[in-house]
Amino acid sequence: MAQGSDIGAEGSSPNAQRDQTRGTVMITALAGGVGAAKLLQGIVQIFPQEELTVIVNTADDIELHGLRISPDIDILAYTLAGIVDESKGWGIRHDTFSCLQGLKEYGRDAWFALGDRDLATHIRRTELLRQGKTLTEATREIAAHLGIYVNLLPMTDDEVTTMIDTAEGTIHFQEYLVKMRAEPEIRGISFRGIEEARPSPGVLESIGRSEGVIICPSNPIVSIGPILSVRGIRKALAAGKSKVVAISPIVGGLPIKGPADKMMRFLGVEVSALGVARLYADVASRMIIDEVDENLSGQIESLGMKATVTNTVMKTMIDKIELSKVVLSLLGIGRRR
Amino acid sequence: MAQGSDIGAEGSSPNAQRDQTRGTVMITALAGGVGAAKLLQGIVQIFPQEELTVIVNTADDIELHGLRISPDIDILAYTLAGIVDESKGWGIRHDTFSCLQGLKEYGRDAWFALGDRDLATHIRRTELLRQGKTLTEATREIAAHLGIYVNLLPMTDDEVTTMIDTAEGTIHFQEYLVKMRAEPEIRGISFRGIEEARPSPGVLESIGRSEGVIICPSNPIVSIGPILSVRGIRKALAAGKSKVVAISPIVGGLPIKGPADKMMRFLGVEVSALGVARLYADVASRMIIDEVDENLSGQIESLGMKATVTNTVMKTMIDKIELSKVVLSLLGIGRRR
Repeated sequence: MAQGSDIGAEGSSPNAQRDQTRGTVMITALAGGVGAAKLLQGIVQIFPQEELTVIVNTADDIELHGLRISPDIDILAYTLAGIVDESKGWGIRHDTFSCLQGLKEYGRDAWFALGDRDLATHIRRTELLRQGKTLTEATREIAAHLGIYVNLLPMTDDEVTTMIDTAEGTIHFQEYLVKMRAEPEIRGISFRGIEEARPSPGVLESIGRSEGVIICPSNPIVSIGPILSVRGIRKALAAGKSKVVAISPIVGGLPIKGPADKMMRFLGVEVSALGVARLYADVASRMIIDEVDENLSGQIESLGMKATVTNTVMKTMIDKIELSKVVLSLLGIGRRR
Repeated sequence: MAQGSDIGAEGSSPNAQRDQTRGTVMITALAGGVGAAKLLQGIVQIFPQEELTVIVNTADDIELHGLRISPDIDILAYTLAGIVDESKGWGIRHDTFSCLQGLKEYGRDAWFALGDRDLATHIRRTELLRQGKTLTEATREIAAHLGIYVNLLPMTDDEVTTMIDTAEGTIHFQEYLVKMRAEPEIRGISFRGIEEARPSPGVLESIGRSEGVIICPSNPIVSIGPILSVRGIRKALAAGKSKVVAISPIVGGLPIKGPADKMMRFLGVEVSALGVARLYADVASRMIIDEVDENLSGQIESLGMKATVTNTVMKTMIDKIELSKVVLSLLGIGRRR
């Protein structure tokens, strides 16, 4: 076990030295929504956006009112663009909800909050997709207009949908999470379409070429899980396992946010940083766990992973940057901004 | 020529008497946007919404940002629902424009003002059309949720588009009107798709069954013109010409609103109530013209039409109701509310 503060000095690793002469160190991150967005806010404070690729879960995507919504892509894009509503972690700051109110008046379900400014994203994305663009292309165009230089890549351009089996039937993950507030007992979790889903162009290349890969502190089952399940991704990560570091989203036996605990429990996975480590043992060589979970580091190391203990609860920008420094140090990449 | 105030007492016509025993007098109106909406606001004050069918121009319809916009239907619906922005004559009162601002940020043309609440209409309509509903069905559903009992019927469920030839090329009517502020010189006007367009279900039946038909004070070329050009409509009106009354949108040689003068001039039609009467002489037996155009009534009557002179400039609700009373009286239909 290594303490975060014990990690080698910035830029001291052979990799980083090599890449500083070459001029480019690439990092790839696997990301869900809010937890990942917080970490990436820190990363881009100390690492160039242009050299960061983020592979984003799209299994939460949903069509509502005829519009294609990509919740994780939007959370990441709005966060990186500095326009996210930080109090909620999603949506756009100071947004209004007149259109949603109108849709309600037209008798539509309005359980999924869609702000007016936010809607421009969904309208534009839907228009681009209808014009035959891929989700990757649509995402690139929207991100460019938001002034984001991070390479935001949907995990796949194919349709994958997380479905939750409950006593009331099999429902879309968003319906389970947002409409039902994650209350129904889980009887099954499936990623519809995952068998046929191909990684988006650039996904495998990015993992292969990167000096370091970060598995963000996102829900390991329904955010990171679908990404790992897209054809070729798990294998690509396993092949470069030594450069992969994962941050546990479970702190003190509970998720920072969301229903990861219920899902892990349903799947028979211990709800702890150790449980997360077991899920990632084949694809990551290092786990970052919170200080409160220090007692788990021995067991994590017995899985063949290095455990690093640091504060992982990101309340302030300082927290985000400090955690990012630990991540980059573990990857042997120095602060570059 | 008959003065508006000279028209027979309410409910005194044989038609109206017959229908009062039957319990239903049907009126059909042919309508464009703002001018028609003002008149219909008056009509529904004195006549039951349930017995009024409005056949609406759809040749102004446009797809923007992947959404189907039906400007005339929306103006009429919002006006009849009492939510129209009266200062503009279109859009929804107190609407916000956050989404449009967002679309602008995404590099989109934002010359067509789309309010946030307004967008709910376009999103819902587009969703219904994509689900295979007709425009008539989509309009019925939206109108019902707005609490409108008037039977709002698109003139056709087929695609018809008014195109304007200008020196800068052939452009959509909305582009000419809104984006170019009707400034380019007109070199041609065409209704693309009009040859194949079939009247919506109920359109011909409504004209046939109605006790009276009103041609609203809308642009005779691009609002009423397309309606008259849909297969069967002109013939159905001509067959019942004696029950058709038209209100001139040209007052004192100028349109109340919009570019009707430029269009009439381009087509070699005199820009006057007389010019309008010539356009309608085959489908209407009566013309209502403004007091300032009283001098034209002789020439209008020489076309074989009865001319009625009254105030047609609708600034207040009283103006609208007074004009509506004249219209209903001419149709031999008494005030029924």
